[in-house]
Amino acid sequence: MTQRFKLMVEYDGGPYVGFQYQDTGPTIQAALEDAVFKLTGERARIFVAGRTDAGVHALGQVAHVDIDKPLSADVVMDALNAHLVPQPIAILGVEAVSDDFHARFSATGRAYLYRMLNRRAPPTVDAGRVWHVKKPLDVDAMHAAAQLLVGTHDFTTFRAANCQAKSPVKTLDRLDVSRVGEEVHVVAESRSFLHHQVRSMAGTLKLVGDGKWTAKDLQAALDARDRTALGMNAPACGLYLTRVSYD
Amino acid sequence: MTQRFKLMVEYDGGPYVGFQYQDTGPTIQAALEDAVFKLTGERARIFVAGRTDAGVHALGQVAHVDIDKPLSADVVMDALNAHLVPQPIAILGVEAVSDDFHARFSATGRAYLYRMLNRRAPPTVDAGRVWHVKKPLDVDAMHAAAQLLVGTHDFTTFRAANCQAKSPVKTLDRLDVSRVGEEVHVVAESRSFLHHQVRSMAGTLKLVGDGKWTAKDLQAALDARDRTALGMNAPACGLYLTRVSYD
Repeated sequence: MTQRFKLMVEYDGGPYVGFQYQDTGPTIQAALEDAVFKLTGERARIFVAGRTDAGVHALGQVAHVDIDKPLSADVVMDALNAHLVPQPIAILGVEAVSDDFHARFSATGRAYLYRMLNRRAPPTVDAGRVWHVKKPLDVDAMHAAAQLLVGTHDFTTFRAANCQAKSPVKTLDRLDVSRVGEEVHVVAESRSFLHHQVRSMAGTLKLVGDGKWTAKDLQAALDARDRTALGMNAPACGLYLTRVSYD
Repeated sequence: MTQRFKLMVEYDGGPYVGFQYQDTGPTIQAALEDAVFKLTGERARIFVAGRTDAGVHALGQVAHVDIDKPLSADVVMDALNAHLVPQPIAILGVEAVSDDFHARFSATGRAYLYRMLNRRAPPTVDAGRVWHVKKPLDVDAMHAAAQLLVGTHDFTTFRAANCQAKSPVKTLDRLDVSRVGEEVHVVAESRSFLHHQVRSMAGTLKLVGDGKWTAKDLQAALDARDRTALGMNAPACGLYLTRVSYD
């Protein structure tokens, strides 16, 4: 009997070329599938809610896998964690689910956090985990401009060249910018995002925060529906997939 | 004319054998003194408030150095940060101070944070930055027991064999244990600490938290004034020097 398991996954994306299999280097998918193989002796495919890019982290990624052996969720969790050592990938929780659950296609919401360290001195304990922005950012201006992007829009401007989504129209439910100690956090929520959309929005909001762009410039970029109108992409190291929701 | 500068320093202690010069590997002191040499062309000694051990981090370490060239505090800060790249050491602030300021001997208070990640799954983005404690900890029991250590005591039990302090009597002003998300934090404040004192206290409180020790056992260990009565040392990777105070 095959049992489908839902996995809650956390990882440091730094050492990986991305979630999904690639010839160019280690992937989180390969690490997870190898761990499943060590547990079951069988090759099983891992499906994931958010196929994060190289260097992007996850605190609440969700995946699913089908396992043919009679194993409890607790055993799957502890065994996968043991087999993943010493890689910076951890299974935070495992749940037996029905066969109609699909980590990617059943997902009804995704949340991302983008962390900017906004101070003159470079990061130390958080190196590789934040984007270092030296110039003081105007968080109020960033948050106000961000609200122009909330709602249903054609996000072509904020889309990567290789984005595979059928439509560039997405509904952004939340885009909040706030100061948290020395950091500036951008929180984005949507049913789904275009490839690079969160990093494109974060990078462009940074231009608003340091005074290079106005909210009007951001509106014009959105209206242009043209990738060349984009301000900039924020680097991968500051991005975290924090939550995936299901009905 | 020589000018003394007070430096606020942050570092990831992971790659270092400790703050102070040693033959066995890289030290934060050597990195800082090399950066000063690159800036001034002269060898100057760095003095520090807390000589942290191998692997211990600092978010608010304080040091001082005497510089013979006429340089502003801002120039010293940015130049040292530039010369420290790519090491995980950053100068958060620089202040010109009078010659009677001494980072170590003028300090009137030190604060440490000890971070335990209290969950079944191992750390990923925080690997090397927290102590992984799988068993659920009873934070209320830990905090209550911690209060037995607050005040003026002979802390011989919680002292390293190689501790150089003249007296084992110290006054602990604060020892708070609290849950912060998936972590358990121990915050310790005192004018000064014995070598390994915070890690010894944190490790022993962990034994109280997982039920191996009672508060009575902790009291008996303190009263024994004997290092062999110690519960355990918590590992270095969870410890942060967070603040040094001056009158």
